[in-house]
Amino acid sequence: MRFFSDNAATVHPRVMAAMADANHLDTAYDGDGLSRSLDARLSDLFGTDVAALWVPTGTAANCLALAALCPPHGGVICHRDAHIQNDEGGAPEFFTHGAKLFLADGDGAKVTPETIAAVADAIPNDVHRVQPHAISITNATEYGRVYTPDEVGAIGALAKRRGLGLHMDGARFANAVATLGCTPAAVTWEAGVDALSFGFVKNGAMSAELLVFFRPDLADVTRYRRKRAGLLFSKGRYLAAQVIAMLEDDLWLANARAANACASTLAAAAGGRLVHPVEANEVFLRATPEEAAALRAQGFDFYDWAPGEIRLVTAWDSAADHVAALAKAIAAL
Amino acid sequence: MRFFSDNAATVHPRVMAAMADANHLDTAYDGDGLSRSLDARLSDLFGTDVAALWVPTGTAANCLALAALCPPHGGVICHRDAHIQNDEGGAPEFFTHGAKLFLADGDGAKVTPETIAAVADAIPNDVHRVQPHAISITNATEYGRVYTPDEVGAIGALAKRRGLGLHMDGARFANAVATLGCTPAAVTWEAGVDALSFGFVKNGAMSAELLVFFRPDLADVTRYRRKRAGLLFSKGRYLAAQVIAMLEDDLWLANARAANACASTLAAAAGGRLVHPVEANEVFLRATPEEAAALRAQGFDFYDWAPGEIRLVTAWDSAADHVAALAKAIAAL
Amino acid sequence: MRFFSDNAATVHPRVMAAMADANHLDTAYDGDGLSRSLDARLSDLFGTDVAALWVPTGTAANCLALAALCPPHGGVICHRDAHIQNDEGGAPEFFTHGAKLFLADGDGAKVTPETIAAVADAIPNDVHRVQPHAISITNATEYGRVYTPDEVGAIGALAKRRGLGLHMDGARFANAVATLGCTPAAVTWEAGVDALSFGFVKNGAMSAELLVFFRPDLADVTRYRRKRAGLLFSKGRYLAAQVIAMLEDDLWLANARAANACASTLAAAAGGRLVHPVEANEVFLRATPEEAAALRAQGFDFYDWAPGEIRLVTAWDSAADHVAALAKAIAAL
Amino acid sequence: MRFFSDNAATVHPRVMAAMADANHLDTAYDGDGLSRSLDARLSDLFGTDVAALWVPTGTAANCLALAALCPPHGGVICHRDAHIQNDEGGAPEFFTHGAKLFLADGDGAKVTPETIAAVADAIPNDVHRVQPHAISITNATEYGRVYTPDEVGAIGALAKRRGLGLHMDGARFANAVATLGCTPAAVTWEAGVDALSFGFVKNGAMSAELLVFFRPDLADVTRYRRKRAGLLFSKGRYLAAQVIAMLEDDLWLANARAANACASTLAAAAGGRLVHPVEANEVFLRATPEEAAALRAQGFDFYDWAPGEIRLVTAWDSAADHVAALAKAIAAL
Repeated sequence: MRFFSDNAATVHPRVMAAMADANHLDTAYDGDGLSRSLDARLSDLFGTDVAALWVPTGTAANCLALAALCPPHGGVICHRDAHIQNDEGGAPEFFTHGAKLFLADGDGAKVTPETIAAVADAIPNDVHRVQPHAISITNATEYGRVYTPDEVGAIGALAKRRGLGLHMDGARFANAVATLGCTPAAVTWEAGVDALSFGFVKNGAMSAELLVFFRPDLADVTRYRRKRAGLLFSKGRYLAAQVIAMLEDDLWLANARAANACASTLAAAAGGRLVHPVEANEVFLRATPEEAAALRAQGFDFYDWAPGEIRLVTAWDSAADHVAALAKAIAAL
Repeated sequence: MRFFSDNAATVHPRVMAAMADANHLDTAYDGDGLSRSLDARLSDLFGTDVAALWVPTGTAANCLALAALCPPHGGVICHRDAHIQNDEGGAPEFFTHGAKLFLADGDGAKVTPETIAAVADAIPNDVHRVQPHAISITNATEYGRVYTPDEVGAIGALAKRRGLGLHMDGARFANAVATLGCTPAAVTWEAGVDALSFGFVKNGAMSAELLVFFRPDLADVTRYRRKRAGLLFSKGRYLAAQVIAMLEDDLWLANARAANACASTLAAAAGGRLVHPVEANEVFLRATPEEAAALRAQGFDFYDWAPGEIRLVTAWDSAADHVAALAKAIAAL
Repeated sequence: MRFFSDNAATVHPRVMAAMADANHLDTAYDGDGLSRSLDARLSDLFGTDVAALWVPTGTAANCLALAALCPPHGGVICHRDAHIQNDEGGAPEFFTHGAKLFLADGDGAKVTPETIAAVADAIPNDVHRVQPHAISITNATEYGRVYTPDEVGAIGALAKRRGLGLHMDGARFANAVATLGCTPAAVTWEAGVDALSFGFVKNGAMSAELLVFFRPDLADVTRYRRKRAGLLFSKGRYLAAQVIAMLEDDLWLANARAANACASTLAAAAGGRLVHPVEANEVFLRATPEEAAALRAQGFDFYDWAPGEIRLVTAWDSAADHVAALAKAIAAL
Repeated sequence: MRFFSDNAATVHPRVMAAMADANHLDTAYDGDGLSRSLDARLSDLFGTDVAALWVPTGTAANCLALAALCPPHGGVICHRDAHIQNDEGGAPEFFTHGAKLFLADGDGAKVTPETIAAVADAIPNDVHRVQPHAISITNATEYGRVYTPDEVGAIGALAKRRGLGLHMDGARFANAVATLGCTPAAVTWEAGVDALSFGFVKNGAMSAELLVFFRPDLADVTRYRRKRAGLLFSKGRYLAAQVIAMLEDDLWLANARAANACASTLAAAAGGRLVHPVEANEVFLRATPEEAAALRAQGFDFYDWAPGEIRLVTAWDSAADHVAALAKAIAAL
């Protein structure tokens, strides 16, 4: 019973079906009809003109976004537990040609205007110091916390005042929106976000993420960069098909709601053990090594996040009986 | 009737089926059972210990290989019409951090020990000149020509004598091997090749290529580089499944033979119009703009390669009636 | 008797004196009075607002200029014998993060609008091809040829039409201007040049070159890049002092005239042996290995440029008797 | 009366004289007699075979060293207040092609085996995490603290155990050795250091630093990288001359002792105001804004390091009367 991560979840049948449907000849790269429809589909979803590029991984989406917002000699402010800092093998530095990540603090991997400003204010504006050019936030965060539209808006306002770009790593954007109940626009461009990594892989897709630019001009150069990074697929239609299937009838939201509900079930069982409020599909809870071993002995697989702390992640395809069993096991600890 | 390129061909049903079969939970990234089996499967195929990494595009395979063989301050000798020089949007320079491509001559996009040596000999060994560290050849070439094991061996011997790495861009490796009738080993590591981009996408796969290292130690660093380039998929099993399906019962060879046979049919019809001998699945022929227009008027789609020259590419799924019709149309020009 | 290159010539006494005069405390980096005066001094010289940054080498000046004009995913068109292509150890690729050099043809290492357009026109505007973003020309060229204001202007007009930046490698700019007898403005910004590497080291300075931006805004980012490349000296005043001494009373022109005059003397002696017209301070002449050996036996040091061809370079400090002796020896061959 | 930094100090007359003496023709780049003597001279000084390359800035020395010890996909552990992290405008990331700096803690900008291990141990060895490849320490540190041979040796032992390279930023190496009274060997290669940035510019030179490799093979590639970074001077003899003058009769030590003595005088006057023990030529002391203003009103120039904290730096040429006056003023606060 896997609660290790949502990153290896199965692919939703409708996504599989859409890929099978796409299996006929069309133009290569992103010249096919499905790929060419993405800008319009995402512009509809967000209620504003956007440019949307498929890529196969969240790392690629994040780092192409950073490269669009930050020059090689610049820096990006992010939380010190951000995925781009810790889990992408130096991809931000690769794609940006060596930009620097500046690490801000905040509970639950959430930064605030205050913690961002504290980082930026410590950097004198001279050539000896790498200057910040962008901010990157993750929603939902690496600890399953969610930024509200107001919280993002406050960061967006800071970004605007200081001339910084604003990127949102939305590997679990669906989970965040499902929790917030707001429009996708409210928590992105309306709040000042310039570029969104819109994640689908953790949420039922196979290998398609979208890089959405709310300043569509940023996409012009990024199309060259995507090719230059070996990320432009010959048969893009199979990526576009995944995205379109996920958007169809809001499958992305339905899947996220399912995952979030499972996490809520676990959270309720965990009670006082919770390390962070559970606002998406991740549950961090205190557990001694013995308790962790007891859970594993019952067939549950998960991540030892830190000493005395474990991480449980639910997915769109988490089995109800597995979740119920785990909830029961947690309650029984 | 598409003869534009093989890069957008459909996906073989057995590949689609294998991907569907892989749609159950497993470990993420390349920790799943299918991905972990690749080294052994490819070692079997090549009759020597290899390391095999999946990547989604030929550009990624090529450029990770070059980065493994050439430092940032070095250079790679390739044909001036090589894909890495002309069609990868600067990806070689991106992945190698700025290594230089040195351009050699040769008919049909084939380099020879002589044309390689001519390039290398013109570069004095001092710090003012970028020094060559590797050679990259394409088999089959960009003009559908095939290097024999002896030809590769002569280049491999030169590489060894001069301390240069040897990469083979095998976007159409299957087509070359199908023509040669040799073992995959004979035209690669037995001939001195260090790294092979083993192409499947043009030959029936959806999004999986293999980077095969005949010096398996080169893979150690490349695994970090693959992640750093945003190329490490969360759900690698769907890539591995494609490769395995292609290898099963030599589907890769069967598909290549089918594509090659279609090209032979067209070549026979083209007769004296041929610009290059047809040895794989590409046919370059002389055609006036009027002749090209006439073909297009009959529903054939293809690439204007150069003034007075068109390129026809067949694929594993080229329809027999389309090929017959095109052959007839060519003969009738 | 050294005619090997002007790059190791002695330092002019007035430059040495200026450095000694600068040997008192001042602000570090480029905050000192001398460094701060450079923008104004060069703006005076060129008759327009410029930004002028000292750097220690021509390679640094060239490559910072290229980085200002071309993004990592772009390309620069230059002559195939350009210094940036052949003699800078890959520095253009390093500073630009992997931009590509596209090689144009032309006699005497001079490109023309036609040879530039031939390169550019061969590059389809799609993401698979690196797109040209800039042109770099060398004046005087690597073969001692000089571009006139009209010739530069024609290239500048092409650059403007196509949206390309225009850089001039002026390692021997002084020699060119001395020959042309025009204003420095006429052959640079008035002709469309955006950035000039203004060389002093070959012409009597010790270690100071200037990067002059005719679009001063380009300097803003370059100041960060200069620091990031380890090129921002703590004690910049000793670099600025060199430049100022070279400008004082047009020492740069006097030195260049002296070097050019020596080359003219040699050219007159060489007569029909000349490979290129002698327009600056370099003399390329045909000489058999035996003839070259004979000259060396008489104590002359020079470069074997190519089979049957030698290069003689004069400098501001070439001794009159050495030049006379070499001229006599050449005439006697 | 300047106590702002030692980085703009005047050039020692013997260095100026040596540069004047070098003003005659010789081979270009580092082919001249002076440059070619550096390996031997430094091997003598350190009592082991070293390779020594001149560069013009400490940033260049540091970052070429890091590039020699760490691949683009790797990381370097340093103190969070290290010059390479805060004051080099992203040069480490530029020269290493995007390696990551990992920040360790420690009083006085000194790291320890424990604080280094704490950083390294937090990084799981998988491809998602940038792996540390080197350690960089500064001696004397950014706060004027000195690592003893034993302290360096403990770090060197850790480096060896973990397969990490060890770099020493010795911008103020002379000040450290002057304080320690040990051989230069004892605190470098005998303690496990692989590469030293040996600073001269802050200590009486004009524009010459040395990058000393105790593993001379590391220099082979670095010679190419130095050229590629635009750091290979045409007239290297003027850099080598500076270094040689500094080494002659241990001028480097005499100058450092002079600077250190001035700092000791100030330290004695500062008493309980000292933030860090004064072990080299930097004095950090607590001073209210009013006290700082009072000192400035008396003509003293210095750096406001942090709220309530000022930095005073002495140099080889600090005037005795200025130092005495400042000491008196401090005591009188």
